[in-house]
Amino acid sequence: MIATLLAPLRAPANVAVGPGDDAAILADGTALTVDALVEGVHWDARLNAEDVGFKTLAVSVSDLASVGAKPAWALLTLALPDEDLGWVSDFARGLAAACERWGVALVGGDTVFTPGPKLVSLTLGGPCVASPMLRSAAKPGHIVWATGSPGLASLGWRLSDPPQEALDALRRPDPPVEFALALARTGWVGAAMDLSDGLERDLPRLCAASGVGCVIDPDRVGRHRLLVDEHWANAVSGGDEYQLLFTTPPERAQDVRELADSFDVWVTPIGTCDDSGAARLTDRAWPGASFRHFGGRS
Amino acid sequence: MIATLLAPLRAPANVAVGPGDDAAILADGTALTVDALVEGVHWDARLNAEDVGFKTLAVSVSDLASVGAKPAWALLTLALPDEDLGWVSDFARGLAAACERWGVALVGGDTVFTPGPKLVSLTLGGPCVASPMLRSAAKPGHIVWATGSPGLASLGWRLSDPPQEALDALRRPDPPVEFALALARTGWVGAAMDLSDGLERDLPRLCAASGVGCVIDPDRVGRHRLLVDEHWANAVSGGDEYQLLFTTPPERAQDVRELADSFDVWVTPIGTCDDSGAARLTDRAWPGASFRHFGGRS
Repeated sequence: MIATLLAPLRAPANVAVGPGDDAAILADGTALTVDALVEGVHWDARLNAEDVGFKTLAVSVSDLASVGAKPAWALLTLALPDEDLGWVSDFARGLAAACERWGVALVGGDTVFTPGPKLVSLTLGGPCVASPMLRSAAKPGHIVWATGSPGLASLGWRLSDPPQEALDALRRPDPPVEFALALARTGWVGAAMDLSDGLERDLPRLCAASGVGCVIDPDRVGRHRLLVDEHWANAVSGGDEYQLLFTTPPERAQDVRELADSFDVWVTPIGTCDDSGAARLTDRAWPGASFRHFGGRS
Repeated sequence: MIATLLAPLRAPANVAVGPGDDAAILADGTALTVDALVEGVHWDARLNAEDVGFKTLAVSVSDLASVGAKPAWALLTLALPDEDLGWVSDFARGLAAACERWGVALVGGDTVFTPGPKLVSLTLGGPCVASPMLRSAAKPGHIVWATGSPGLASLGWRLSDPPQEALDALRRPDPPVEFALALARTGWVGAAMDLSDGLERDLPRLCAASGVGCVIDPDRVGRHRLLVDEHWANAVSGGDEYQLLFTTPPERAQDVRELADSFDVWVTPIGTCDDSGAARLTDRAWPGASFRHFGGRS
C-alpha cells in the first residue's frame, strides 16, 4: 500500500532521508515521524485514556530516538465519536506526562468528529544530535544488539490475564531515548531502528536496507523470566516493543556495554550480521505470520 | 474540547506561536499545521479519491499561507477500513498533483487499519517568509478584506445538484498562496487567518484575538452570481472555503488592490474594524448555528 501511495510522488528534494526509515530527516537535520493509534486495533480496554495519551507520544519518541534525534515538538490529531470530555481530560494528562518526560512541546493539533472508533495521530519533530543512525549501514561481522526485554508488551497484549510487568510494558512504553542519543553521538553504530513491529518483521527490513543477512540466537532475545517456554515467540515476533535494535563492529562490544550501563539500559548481543542476505534464527524457524502484531493489521 | 486537551500541558517553551492560530510557529520560524478529514464528515461521494488527495494538502497549504509561511514538507496518516489499492492510487495521484503545485515534499507517513470510515491527517511544515501574520493584530479602523468568493464550496456541499463551479470549489480548494506570501512580505497586514470555518465562526476568533469588533457588509462578501437570493448565507456562514481574511490600515487599500491584481486574485473590502468587541453584519443577524460547517460537526 505504501508503494502504491508513493508511486506518483516525486522523490523529495532537499530531504536527507525520505520515507522508509523510522523518521524522515530534512536537509537541516530535523527528524520527523508520524504514528497513528486506533481504538480496538492498537489499544483496547487494557489501556485507559491516560495510558493512550502517554503511549501516543512514546511510540513516536522511539522512532526519533532510533535515528538519533531529540524529540522537541508535536502536533496531534484527535478523531472522536463523541465529546467525551472525561476521556479527553485523562488522555491529555497522560500526554502531558510524556511531554514532560521527554521535553516535548505540543504546538498544535486538530480535533475532528468520526463515526468510527477513536483515533489519535501524532507528528513529532526534533533535531538530530549527530549523523543520523539509519537502517542501511549494517555490515557483515557486526554484532546485532537489542535493548530491554522485547516481548513483554506482546505478552501483555496476548494473555487474557497478563502479569503486571507485561501490562506496564504495553501501557507505558519506555524507549531508551537518552542511551540512543548518546549512542548516536559515539559514531559506533552501523544500522539502527526501533523494534515497533517485532524482530521477525523489523530485522529483514534492516537487512534489506543494509544488503546483509544475520543470524539471531532466539534464546538471547528478550531474556526475561516471563518469556520462556510457550511464551518465547513473543520475544522474536511480538510487536509494540519500542526497544532499540542496532549493530556495531565487534570491537565496540565492551564500549557499548559500558555506555548502556551508564544509562541503566539493558543491552544484549542477540546475533551477528553476515552476507547471506537473510535474517534467520540459529536453530529454528521464525514463529511466522500466525504471530502478528496484535493479531490484527497494523 | 481543545481547552480540556490543553489544560494539563505546559505552555510550550521555544515556540513563537502555539495552539490557537492557523499554524504554530517555532522559534526558528518554521510554521506547522495539521488537518484531518473523515469520510462522511468532511467529504462524501461528491469528492472522488483524487479530489480527497488534492484537498488533503490544499486545506493545510491554506493554513500555512495565511500566516505567511511557504509550504515545504508533509507527513501523512492514512487510516483505511480495507486495502483498496485503487482508492489509494487515485488518492496518491491527487496528493501528488497538489504537492507539485505548491512545491511540497511528502517525507513520511503512517498507514493504519480502522474499522471506521477512511480518515486522512496531514501535517505540513514550512518557513515563514517574513514576520508571521497572526489573528491578533487587527486595529479599529482597519479595513477587513476577503479574497475570492467565499460561499461557493458551501453551496457545492449544500445543494443536491450543485453547479459545476460550486463543485469545483468544494473539490479543489485554491487558496491564494502566492498572494498571501507576497502580502506577508509587505508588512501591511494587521491580522490574518483563513476562512476554513466561514466568516460567521472565524471572524469572532480574529476579533477576540485582536481585541476589536467589526462591521461587515454581507452584500460585499462572496459577490458571485450563484450566491444571491436564498443562497446569500453561504457567503458569510459557509465553511470549507480556504480564502484569506485579513485587515490593513485604510491607507493601504490601493496597494492591496494592486498587489492582488498582480497575482490575479480577487480581493474585496467587506467591512471595517471598530472598538465594539463584536463581529456584526451591517443590516441583519448572522444566519446562526442552523447554518453550520457541513451541517455536521467539524
